[in-house]
Amino acid sequence: MSFIKTPNKGMRDILPKDMELREYVLKVMKETYLLFGFQMIQTPVVEHIENLTSNQGGENEKLIFKVMKRGEKLKEGNILELDSLVDCGLRYDLTVPLTRFYANSMNELSMPFRSFQIGNVYRAERSQKGRYREFMQCDLDILGEKTSLAEIDLMLAVITFLKKLDFKGFTIKVNDRRILTKMIECAGLPLSSLSSILIALDKLDKIGILGVEEELNMLSLEKDNVKKYLSFFEKNTDSIEEFCQSFSMDADVVSNLCEIIQVVKNNIDVNIIFDPTLVRGMGYYTGTIFEIVVDDFSSSIGGGGRYDKMIEKYTNQSVSACGFSIGFERLLLLLEERGFKVPDKKEKLAIVLSKDANLQEVFLKAQKLRQKNKQVKLVYRSKNYRFQKESLENENYEILEW
Amino acid sequence: MSFIKTPNKGMRDILPKDMELREYVLKVMKETYLLFGFQMIQTPVVEHIENLTSNQGGENEKLIFKVMKRGEKLKEGNILELDSLVDCGLRYDLTVPLTRFYANSMNELSMPFRSFQIGNVYRAERSQKGRYREFMQCDLDILGEKTSLAEIDLMLAVITFLKKLDFKGFTIKVNDRRILTKMIECAGLPLSSLSSILIALDKLDKIGILGVEEELNMLSLEKDNVKKYLSFFEKNTDSIEEFCQSFSMDADVVSNLCEIIQVVKNNIDVNIIFDPTLVRGMGYYTGTIFEIVVDDFSSSIGGGGRYDKMIEKYTNQSVSACGFSIGFERLLLLLEERGFKVPDKKEKLAIVLSKDANLQEVFLKAQKLRQKNKQVKLVYRSKNYRFQKESLENENYEILEW
Repeated sequence: MSFIKTPNKGMRDILPKDMELREYVLKVMKETYLLFGFQMIQTPVVEHIENLTSNQGGENEKLIFKVMKRGEKLKEGNILELDSLVDCGLRYDLTVPLTRFYANSMNELSMPFRSFQIGNVYRAERSQKGRYREFMQCDLDILGEKTSLAEIDLMLAVITFLKKLDFKGFTIKVNDRRILTKMIECAGLPLSSLSSILIALDKLDKIGILGVEEELNMLSLEKDNVKKYLSFFEKNTDSIEEFCQSFSMDADVVSNLCEIIQVVKNNIDVNIIFDPTLVRGMGYYTGTIFEIVVDDFSSSIGGGGRYDKMIEKYTNQSVSACGFSIGFERLLLLLEERGFKVPDKKEKLAIVLSKDANLQEVFLKAQKLRQKNKQVKLVYRSKNYRFQKESLENENYEILEW
Repeated sequence: MSFIKTPNKGMRDILPKDMELREYVLKVMKETYLLFGFQMIQTPVVEHIENLTSNQGGENEKLIFKVMKRGEKLKEGNILELDSLVDCGLRYDLTVPLTRFYANSMNELSMPFRSFQIGNVYRAERSQKGRYREFMQCDLDILGEKTSLAEIDLMLAVITFLKKLDFKGFTIKVNDRRILTKMIECAGLPLSSLSSILIALDKLDKIGILGVEEELNMLSLEKDNVKKYLSFFEKNTDSIEEFCQSFSMDADVVSNLCEIIQVVKNNIDVNIIFDPTLVRGMGYYTGTIFEIVVDDFSSSIGGGGRYDKMIEKYTNQSVSACGFSIGFERLLLLLEERGFKVPDKKEKLAIVLSKDANLQEVFLKAQKLRQKNKQVKLVYRSKNYRFQKESLENENYEILEW
């Protein structure tokens, strides 16, 4: 019998010491998001293969764990066409299930719908440190709210959550897809190249402005227009209005972005800035986009934006939408690295029993203490008591010999 | 584009109103089990196909959602042998992953190890009411404790949890696999027929003693021995000692079972009884078995037992083990049917905004209230305000017009 001891490739067992932090962070998150009026929902991990391959997921669609049909249906599949053997797969994000959830249950939801979803997602990525094939996502979304109320409340909820964890040293970067588009248009660059241009721009912090120029020129764009495009970014100003003057951005997009930043700033002590080079990968964003960047960490620990057209695509009903997703595993990693300790632990007592202890009496004692909210572990004295005692003390157990 | 709105067959979206109860019950469970010194662990939903098909799972192994290999490995598979296209699958219980977890991490665990695992499991069963293909299991296990301390503490933990939910009207039935075996032996029936005999016995409450006799006689067993076997069950007594006299059961098995029942009874107000007809399906049990039966519900909402040989089979290390699993979905169903209400809800306030509300001021107000632990939802006044107001009031929101 070949029994394999290690977890499935790229996935993890989580040990008790790590669960403690996970559970604490989830508890704080739930408490906070509920205060902001978000409502928890849950969707299946297994999703129709049709929904997972509808082009909503971008590159993630290449990383699907596909589930084989079962029974008669499997026999009906054509073995020469492997996809005909598959009818579902594991979700790669929580946005596809949310879209399906909304389409299926919209009549039972109070609108605007403030959705809060925590769940594992699956991506068959190449294994590398800190990247898992099963990992948790925590998504907030507001469906049916077209004003900046959505962006502001999402940001305040997430920032409040991070602050309750005493998490410091991060910046919220904000931009708007419409600004990114307008700059390309105004420079005379073709919108047909929009996504390639943005992919290049997204590398700015890694390869510098000259590197971006080089990449753009490789797209066989007009060199003068590329120069004009990049010159927009050279304007050295903190003011969105001023930055946007050179390409005559619509005033309402500018004032919308200004309001979001201003209201968030006035409500909570946080570093929030306009960053015209912020791109965000997913193609479905239509307006504001934002990202939490941690000063001593290479990539972001969360982000989101407005995606007003997506739900319409699947439901034929126009519904504006805005979401914010936390990279839960990365946040945990950072909290650990920074030596975060779960506060306010329970008193822990280990009752160490001799071989002939009267169980009747022991359990009555334990029950009394547990009723007083004390954590009690019952354990027989082992042959190597010194080692046992040390281990228990290392786990912060007070010891009662019985 | 074919986008499917309904969840995958046999699986469910969980709406906010149902999540509230789920979350509350999970919270009470976690608090209780932690008080009893259990430690949370988490294992991947995706498990090696080898581990899922190692005969540990009984009938469940026929219900596996199999996951296809990816990339080059898929191409190497033999399309005429579908199983060669599969390298993993979705777990059908939490016991297989626990065994693997223990085998892989035993050196990092404090022994005896008190494991507490909550997670979804997957079974491709025929759809029927109340049976899902994705459902949550909540398992407690104590590994490395050979005495009845394990059974007693498991039962007390589970009963305490149910009592905190004010859950009434249930009975704990207890038996021992060794008693079931001894009765068969003593009646002169062949142990090679043990599992078929127990399958028949398990139907006693449905088909009566005559029905069981009929089924046993169909197994081509000696009729006299069948009669002798069934006569053991006719003894009308509450005393385990007395019941076991007729087939001279080992005294230590009897006293062990008596002690478990006695100590549990003395510690907590609960209906706990010896039931010699209790079988429990899984073949891996070696000693005590138990089940929670709800008086007005056809089947059990939880159960477990001792399985001292299983881990040895996979790790070559002798480790005694005892577990108790709660049927979480059934428990929720019962709580709902009985009209259980989540207690102690937060104050909820909806601030209903006019079109030209000053967001700056609104958010300052909301932030203040949220800091005071009040749940605040911000929402613009809709065209049909009467309907909106009614909906909010139905959700128990106090309304503040702004």
